[in-house]
Amino acid sequence: MRRVFEALGVPSRFAEVTADALVYANLRCIDSHGVSRGLDYVAGIKLGEINPRPVIRVVRETGSSVMLDGDGGLGPPVASELVERVIEKVSAVGIAIGAARNLRDVGALGYYVSKVTKAGYIGVAVANAKARVSVPGVSSPIVGTNPIAVGIPSRKRTVLLDMALSAASYGKILSHAARGERIPEGWALNKYGKPTTSPKEAAEGYLLPIGGYKGLALAMIVDILTGPVIGGPVSLEITGRGPYTQGGLLVLAIDPALFRKPEEVEKDIENYAKLVNSIPRDPNTEVVVPGEKATKCAEERSQHGIPLDDATFSRLTNVAEELGVSVTELTSPSPKV
Amino acid sequence: MRRVFEALGVPSRFAEVTADALVYANLRCIDSHGVSRGLDYVAGIKLGEINPRPVIRVVRETGSSVMLDGDGGLGPPVASELVERVIEKVSAVGIAIGAARNLRDVGALGYYVSKVTKAGYIGVAVANAKARVSVPGVSSPIVGTNPIAVGIPSRKRTVLLDMALSAASYGKILSHAARGERIPEGWALNKYGKPTTSPKEAAEGYLLPIGGYKGLALAMIVDILTGPVIGGPVSLEITGRGPYTQGGLLVLAIDPALFRKPEEVEKDIENYAKLVNSIPRDPNTEVVVPGEKATKCAEERSQHGIPLDDATFSRLTNVAEELGVSVTELTSPSPKV
Repeated sequence: MRRVFEALGVPSRFAEVTADALVYANLRCIDSHGVSRGLDYVAGIKLGEINPRPVIRVVRETGSSVMLDGDGGLGPPVASELVERVIEKVSAVGIAIGAARNLRDVGALGYYVSKVTKAGYIGVAVANAKARVSVPGVSSPIVGTNPIAVGIPSRKRTVLLDMALSAASYGKILSHAARGERIPEGWALNKYGKPTTSPKEAAEGYLLPIGGYKGLALAMIVDILTGPVIGGPVSLEITGRGPYTQGGLLVLAIDPALFRKPEEVEKDIENYAKLVNSIPRDPNTEVVVPGEKATKCAEERSQHGIPLDDATFSRLTNVAEELGVSVTELTSPSPKV
Repeated sequence: MRRVFEALGVPSRFAEVTADALVYANLRCIDSHGVSRGLDYVAGIKLGEINPRPVIRVVRETGSSVMLDGDGGLGPPVASELVERVIEKVSAVGIAIGAARNLRDVGALGYYVSKVTKAGYIGVAVANAKARVSVPGVSSPIVGTNPIAVGIPSRKRTVLLDMALSAASYGKILSHAARGERIPEGWALNKYGKPTTSPKEAAEGYLLPIGGYKGLALAMIVDILTGPVIGGPVSLEITGRGPYTQGGLLVLAIDPALFRKPEEVEKDIENYAKLVNSIPRDPNTEVVVPGEKATKCAEERSQHGIPLDDATFSRLTNVAEELGVSVTELTSPSPKV
């Protein structure tokens, strides 16, 4: 991916951070935000809808805050620049916030939050996206999946939640369609705003928010925070043809030392994890501290490689070939590495 | 309520802010957190589980943060003290955070967030509560309803979301039981961890989180932020017999001027509200900017009075009588004022 972006005119350090963000997602089983998303970025750059060489500009800055304009640029480099600046500030004053507007899709928010937690701080990120979520009785979209990510630092484990505010992702619906399976109730509406269990109807319709009106309200709050508050578009105003669109991004960092010694926090988080893991449950019922599943996946995939689905693998090899990037290091869709 | 608390030995200014927090909730149709909750506080004070005269202590403080110990005190005075200190700090440095531990139930989080927004700042509050939420396949509670509130300042409207992370409240289940109605799927589990539509079984069982595992994960994150991070108990560790228990409380305030001029933000919020209100919808489908419904209720009830249900009204008059508080100003359960 790095070499593909470089071949498209993306500066090396931008290409590197973008590839890193995508592989971060794949490693953690968030395949919707991995290499396949990167190939959407490639399409966006080719169409001229993503600026491959953005000049990132500081719009406003204080000792504890920064707002960037991303120059319509590739999301990961802009978001990473924002996070680095927020980390610099939080280390000086204990709490800091950053906003970025005028950028394209940033990929998985967890990538940026994990940079904050790795630096030893609590991280929170929210972003708004193109509207595709609605509620029964409405035959148009209202808000985006407007994700939220929160991470809490601990040297002993990764505590990290990264979730869209829709009950299911569009990708999950498409994979049900591919397998010829119906989708569960509560995932989607058809284009007339009626609940549906047909993945085909759902694909032409809208996603449902988590918790009905509660999730819708939370997605609206994210929309206002990353739209009107920072001067970006709201979900309904986000234009662009591809899945690489984005509204605004907010990143908050808090030094836990404002409250307690890091060792105390870590000890109590471990006790919490023990308490959660000791709750009796039926087999196959999954009750874990947020972050555990992704961490396990990352350990697995770091060792055995990232399995890419056939479609993504062939998109990747086609693009590489087209751009004259060597694919000799790429293995088959079922990697042995 | 104010006079009842005073009669119980609560200092005047604490009694006043507590009554104010309760009436705030009733005025906004959040009756579960209104006078009836206040009567639970009365019970807690009588049982010695709520300290009516807490000595609030600053545990740790920086230019942009403060942590309080609430001395096991009545929640609203402790939470209000926290919010006042956070507002003082945000006005100086642009972003500030406060934490309170060792306090009892604070009532509706929206009350504190609205103090932040009235001062012109973005407010966020989270708190953890006694565990009563679980997921199918688990026959014990895992997390509390761990609410989240977010408010965005505007002189033109109240943008405020205040929600528990359970699909429905315990109060809603009880009112279905009282009316002999079944509850919808997705609200609750019986005590064996199986989904139920019986309000009686639900009352002996657990609430379901919004969005299944997503809501559970978010409630765990709130639990960690208000537990291990600030040195308070997690939901599963919260003791106390009554509904007046509480874990920890976090309040964040952000000056929107870090990003844009308040007039610009307000204008874009109004445009957003117009956009949302212009979305075509079926009759009775409710799509509003968070805060609109509560604001309408407050206008209505400010004019016509707060209707108390018979049970709450008689609890209130009984307590007042017992404490020698005059109830001459109280009207009947269906007030004409």
